[in-house]
Amino acid sequence: MEFYEVIKERKSVRKYKPDPIPDDVLNRILEAGRIAPSAKNIQPWHFVVIQNPEIKEMVAEACRGQRFMAEAPVIICGCALEDIAWGRMGGYMSSFAVDLAIAMEHMILAATNEGLGTCWVGAFVEKDVKKILKIPDNVRVVALTPVGYPAEVPRDRGRKLLKDIVSYDKY
Amino acid sequence: MEFYEVIKERKSVRKYKPDPIPDDVLNRILEAGRIAPSAKNIQPWHFVVIQNPEIKEMVAEACRGQRFMAEAPVIICGCALEDIAWGRMGGYMSSFAVDLAIAMEHMILAATNEGLGTCWVGAFVEKDVKKILKIPDNVRVVALTPVGYPAEVPRDRGRKLLKDIVSYDKY
Repeated sequence: MEFYEVIKERKSVRKYKPDPIPDDVLNRILEAGRIAPSAKNIQPWHFVVIQNPEIKEMVAEACRGQRFMAEAPVIICGCALEDIAWGRMGGYMSSFAVDLAIAMEHMILAATNEGLGTCWVGAFVEKDVKKILKIPDNVRVVALTPVGYPAEVPRDRGRKLLKDIVSYDKY
Repeated sequence: MEFYEVIKERKSVRKYKPDPIPDDVLNRILEAGRIAPSAKNIQPWHFVVIQNPEIKEMVAEACRGQRFMAEAPVIICGCALEDIAWGRMGGYMSSFAVDLAIAMEHMILAATNEGLGTCWVGAFVEKDVKKILKIPDNVRVVALTPVGYPAEVPRDRGRKLLKDIVSYDKY
């Protein structure tokens, strides 16, 4: 798809068909995240691709019971290696959340481009997700998304106007 | 451009032509950020579009002297309204950095789609940038990017292999 069409098409999908995702499609989505930029090109990320039905159910439960996630054939869990991420972004923060967000959004847009639905999930209990997926203590979970063929036409949620979020030469 | 072509084309550009960016092109780039997803659809963001040459010079200086930024006709400064961002991402962090990163990457990819170059800049002194752009105390600066026509073919920096950053069903 054309780029602007992809970003307009991307919506949060909360109802999925069980249809599997072909391996080549899934690999193109992961590849889109792999080539994302990151601070100092450190790439402080790891992605867990969850396909096992029982593990999907447990993860959905750890995402505050958002059971729709487990309907999708795949859940991707975006993890950050905080220890190696660049620690001085803006002089005040670690880059890990920014780095992960960029790579995850690349995957989410790539999934849209493949006709798949996704949903940024930030509502989860980190320690529970880490326990289920055997994520090391020093690795952070930043966000998850289900990936699957949409079984709904998601609603359009509206956005602030450009004039309310943009200014010129000063805030 | 086709979506996968855009993400492959995106590189960090550190040398720019002075050619101005047409208004319609700049507006499509900002619009790509405007429609980005954010936690709870709060859209805790504000973008300062810097075109004034003196202000660009000052901002480049506040970005640890990365003077190439001021060569570009435009610098976009991505700001986050931490006060209104969702505070419980993963149960442990504010969503502001993730939200801003998604919207900024939408703009950066849109700029690539328009034949423009960009460069994620995380090396800056936040208080200096805030002073120059009159950014309120309770607003954070997350990242900046120059936007302009490339005057170099940026180098390819390489990435980790998929097998080193992806695992299945567990970390």
